[in-house]
Amino acid sequence: MRIIVQKFGGTSVSSPEARQLVVGKIIKAKQQGFAPVVVVSAMGRKGDHYATDTLIELARSTNKNIAARELDQIMCCGEMISAVVMAATLQSKGLEATMLTGGQAGVITDMNYNNARILKVDPSQILRLVKQGKIPIVCGFQGMSPEGELTTLGRGGSDTTASALGGALNAELIEIYTDVDGIMTADPRIVSNAKILDCISYGEVCQLAHQGAKVIHPRAVEIAMQKGIPLMVKSTFTDAEGTLITNINNGDTGGTAVTDRIATGVTYLANIAQIKVDILDTNDASFKVFKTMAESGISVDLINVHPGKIMFTVNEDVAEQAVIKLEKLGHKVEMVKDCAKVSVVGGGMREVPGVMASFVEALTMNNIQILQTVDSHTSISVLVRKTDMQKSVTALHEKFSLFN
Amino acid sequence: MRIIVQKFGGTSVSSPEARQLVVGKIIKAKQQGFAPVVVVSAMGRKGDHYATDTLIELARSTNKNIAARELDQIMCCGEMISAVVMAATLQSKGLEATMLTGGQAGVITDMNYNNARILKVDPSQILRLVKQGKIPIVCGFQGMSPEGELTTLGRGGSDTTASALGGALNAELIEIYTDVDGIMTADPRIVSNAKILDCISYGEVCQLAHQGAKVIHPRAVEIAMQKGIPLMVKSTFTDAEGTLITNINNGDTGGTAVTDRIATGVTYLANIAQIKVDILDTNDASFKVFKTMAESGISVDLINVHPGKIMFTVNEDVAEQAVIKLEKLGHKVEMVKDCAKVSVVGGGMREVPGVMASFVEALTMNNIQILQTVDSHTSISVLVRKTDMQKSVTALHEKFSLFN
Repeated sequence: MRIIVQKFGGTSVSSPEARQLVVGKIIKAKQQGFAPVVVVSAMGRKGDHYATDTLIELARSTNKNIAARELDQIMCCGEMISAVVMAATLQSKGLEATMLTGGQAGVITDMNYNNARILKVDPSQILRLVKQGKIPIVCGFQGMSPEGELTTLGRGGSDTTASALGGALNAELIEIYTDVDGIMTADPRIVSNAKILDCISYGEVCQLAHQGAKVIHPRAVEIAMQKGIPLMVKSTFTDAEGTLITNINNGDTGGTAVTDRIATGVTYLANIAQIKVDILDTNDASFKVFKTMAESGISVDLINVHPGKIMFTVNEDVAEQAVIKLEKLGHKVEMVKDCAKVSVVGGGMREVPGVMASFVEALTMNNIQILQTVDSHTSISVLVRKTDMQKSVTALHEKFSLFN
Repeated sequence: MRIIVQKFGGTSVSSPEARQLVVGKIIKAKQQGFAPVVVVSAMGRKGDHYATDTLIELARSTNKNIAARELDQIMCCGEMISAVVMAATLQSKGLEATMLTGGQAGVITDMNYNNARILKVDPSQILRLVKQGKIPIVCGFQGMSPEGELTTLGRGGSDTTASALGGALNAELIEIYTDVDGIMTADPRIVSNAKILDCISYGEVCQLAHQGAKVIHPRAVEIAMQKGIPLMVKSTFTDAEGTLITNINNGDTGGTAVTDRIATGVTYLANIAQIKVDILDTNDASFKVFKTMAESGISVDLINVHPGKIMFTVNEDVAEQAVIKLEKLGHKVEMVKDCAKVSVVGGGMREVPGVMASFVEALTMNNIQILQTVDSHTSISVLVRKTDMQKSVTALHEKFSLFN
């Protein structure tokens, strides 16, 4: 049995017209010989009555400190409503569809409400339905603890559901349907000639997501990667091919070689503050700087440690708090607000000489001041002033020939 | 531990103002030394986004023949949303409230979707919470099958949940909160001087409900009666005492003797058609008349069987169909449309001489034509023309001194 997991996001299920297109995608998969297992998100965006954010707002308007447990129980309704409506739509077309809650679909999680981890997936109920020729419509984003408590998986949770089911069912392919044609080389609102990628590696897509691109949740990618199941990101609303996420260094996946590609995409994260600390003391002082940040629950990024100087970035909204904490340690602290991090991601850039040179050249030729850089095997990031962000993205996108 | 079950209907939970009043009722119960177990209906009435009818409409607008199973799954969300909002409201007041789905509350049902029967209630989870001083907020109207399927209990299901929990928890009292001050002697829209009853027997309230009064679901009453747990019907919006439903022939319940009361209330059912069949044959023919109706799924009421003549009533919308079926048997059939059934209900009327005389007197003195009557130990019903319905209710209400 060739199982395909098809996950449809909020905009794909929120209108009757969109749901008709979803039906078409499911029928097409059947015609291709697949047994489809469907995962849905809640309907629509903030403001829609049955959207996750709207349900949270309803609960929070009553009590802004509502318990995490109760918040999960109301959030689960978003996907339940959406999955029933989708099942009903398929039933109206004569297809046998059966709605399953996360728990009914065998998604067993811990009790870490609002951000639960999947402990295991028991695929027996889904397999039973699939063997009967039925199409399971599974509520994404939710699970059930062994004690029967309802849980949610955190942001991007429906993608995670799709990957976890794909793994447990040993699916041939996981399709992530959304309202864009695939994963792009850059945000098209900033770079007008950004293009859709045909394929991308698991690692690259995780890097892109961590560096600010809103594509697919990294957790979902990691689960699929562990099981070696390819993911396809594509649009419900067009017939575009989409972007295949797979292990492109592995000949098994069809040999879609992209080793001639140095860079895969350019991403950005705004609303960042740079913090520079003058360390006049021993190594112990550096340790205490990071320990203080950790104990204050402040995430740090873009870390450069030098003799006598530590630089890193934090989210702008916790920057003032970070400065106060560090000054209490007796250090001289400088903060630069209104920064942005721009990154070039690419599995092909490892050990290719001259990549950093090209990177710096693109920025300096455009009069962009480099505040700080950091690089890994598969990405280079630069901290720039927020006013230079857009120019930086465009310059790097052009330099690394990511345009059409 | 003195447990009280407090059930709040749709209008009691649909606005922030109403929910504050609900909090007051729960706090009051705690102050009186009770451990409250709360049951809630879905929020609001038809048209409200999270009301049961609205969710059904959403599903049916997609597919008017949606499977019963999927319909139950979407309906369950109405109470889940309502119960979370109510739990959040209590939490905001510093009360420890925990939302439970029907399944989590231990309401185990059969798989008869849309109208499931409760097989058993496992009260262990509720008892655990109550012993910790927490207030369980239970989703009414829903349960779970032993296989983990979500089910709903049919109309009036939240009342049924309250009674079933009351029975399983051996509650001291079950309070049914609504938007009226209690059970009335007649519909106040028809009889301006109708009054609230202080108390009523289980049997009488079932009779009233079956005869058309919208008070509390008979199934809920029967469950409470079996366990001998008193029910109190009262308003969320006032401090009125409400109506106590109990076994008023049983001295154990506090001796609220009402044996001097012959009648308890007057009810009506409109949109009824009378059918008269001339039987020219044997007893076998009578049997076949009723068998034909049963096989056609037509409910019959107000049945009078005489030599050569059978009279009964059916709902107006199936009357034409009934006539066609009966004419096929070869009988002469007469139909009277636009009838109404008016009933006087009262546990005190059994074996009291002259009750029927008073009943008939009240009608004939008001020039109301009696089309048919039927009586039991605890009720007398008359079939009248619909145009006489209002006059009949008023005349009987006055005759049996039910006014204030």
